[in-house]
Amino acid sequence: MVPKSHISGRSTQWHADKARATRTAVIEGAATVFNEVGYRSAVISAISRAAKITPGGMYHYFDSKEDIAQAVLDEFEARWSVVPERAPEDSPLGMLISMTLRQMQRLHKDRIVRAGFRMTFEPGTLPTPNTSFAEQWLASVAAVLVDAREAGELTSDANADEIAWTIVSGFVGTYTLAETIGQHANLLSRMEAVLAGALREHLDPDHRDRVLTALRYSVAAISDTDA
Amino acid sequence: MVPKSHISGRSTQWHADKARATRTAVIEGAATVFNEVGYRSAVISAISRAAKITPGGMYHYFDSKEDIAQAVLDEFEARWSVVPERAPEDSPLGMLISMTLRQMQRLHKDRIVRAGFRMTFEPGTLPTPNTSFAEQWLASVAAVLVDAREAGELTSDANADEIAWTIVSGFVGTYTLAETIGQHANLLSRMEAVLAGALREHLDPDHRDRVLTALRYSVAAISDTDA
Repeated sequence: MVPKSHISGRSTQWHADKARATRTAVIEGAATVFNEVGYRSAVISAISRAAKITPGGMYHYFDSKEDIAQAVLDEFEARWSVVPERAPEDSPLGMLISMTLRQMQRLHKDRIVRAGFRMTFEPGTLPTPNTSFAEQWLASVAAVLVDAREAGELTSDANADEIAWTIVSGFVGTYTLAETIGQHANLLSRMEAVLAGALREHLDPDHRDRVLTALRYSVAAISDTDA
Repeated sequence: MVPKSHISGRSTQWHADKARATRTAVIEGAATVFNEVGYRSAVISAISRAAKITPGGMYHYFDSKEDIAQAVLDEFEARWSVVPERAPEDSPLGMLISMTLRQMQRLHKDRIVRAGFRMTFEPGTLPTPNTSFAEQWLASVAAVLVDAREAGELTSDANADEIAWTIVSGFVGTYTLAETIGQHANLLSRMEAVLAGALREHLDPDHRDRVLTALRYSVAAISDTDA
């Protein structure tokens, strides 16, 4: 005889799985609609159609469109900030380069990341602007640049905050411009140019060639995983 | 006795002035609303309130919200592309630097330019995307860079299209990031860093110091007109 607790455990598991699947479908569907028409113009019925979940089913897990948008943003940030496993030979700049290029690739390929990014960088899109994302991004890039300076990869007068701004704004501009003119083919090599332009002047001469070579190789390696 | 044609001429003039004033008020009002809530969420009644023109008065000059948006875009492009009078001593790069910095300043200060810029660079905002603006901007920056290469300011292997992309995407990203985190104080010096990063590697050694000095002076000169 199967003990009661076991049956109840399976049933709880089943419910938890179903809840997770429904939430994921709603988040995916909302991201699709937000990417098409923007957050403000997105209507619940369109999200419901895209998610293939009835409005009633959606309201079981989400109170409002704002609530769905917050779930998309949470999922966006979770997928964005995955730090790559650090190989022992990785230097701070090697890690920054590989992480930044991977973020660009993910943005291009993952619609939830795309929706969250768009909601974050379109002024007036959200009822409560998501300013903390950009601030944290700038701070985390600056922190790696400080590590790089301490490790001797950057010259001692390199201003981490300014270089971080150049990298982050170059990333945002590269993606936005590519979206605007509908030209995504060169996103990684565009970003290579941004990183090289931001770093080149501040690289320590002893590390210069290695870092610029690592940059070129990272673009090639990540492009290959594209196929 | 005043000749009839003169009276009619004055009356025509009065009507033309009134038409122009009304059109301008609607464009200004629409820009205000578009900046607040975005084009898609803007409603005619809000534009009418912001413009202090009745909806009936607006429909005398504009058929629809799309029509008003097109007028905002036309006015944006007219204000954007004003080429500064070229001083005889100006080099192609001198002109590019001064023009780019003035565009950034105008974007920050002029709400019609801001509205047009935003409508252009927010994906899915407009029924018909305004891709030609970004393409023309890239092409016009690349054309000046070709002039600069021919004038010997850039090295002979400088790739005008790539440098133009770095400048334009750096501009778009700098402005978008500043808007997102609500930090506009350093827009001109951020743009100085973008221009320096894009150009430095490609400057001819004979022109290098002059161009980088001109860049620094232009930022100071344009910041002064700010006051």
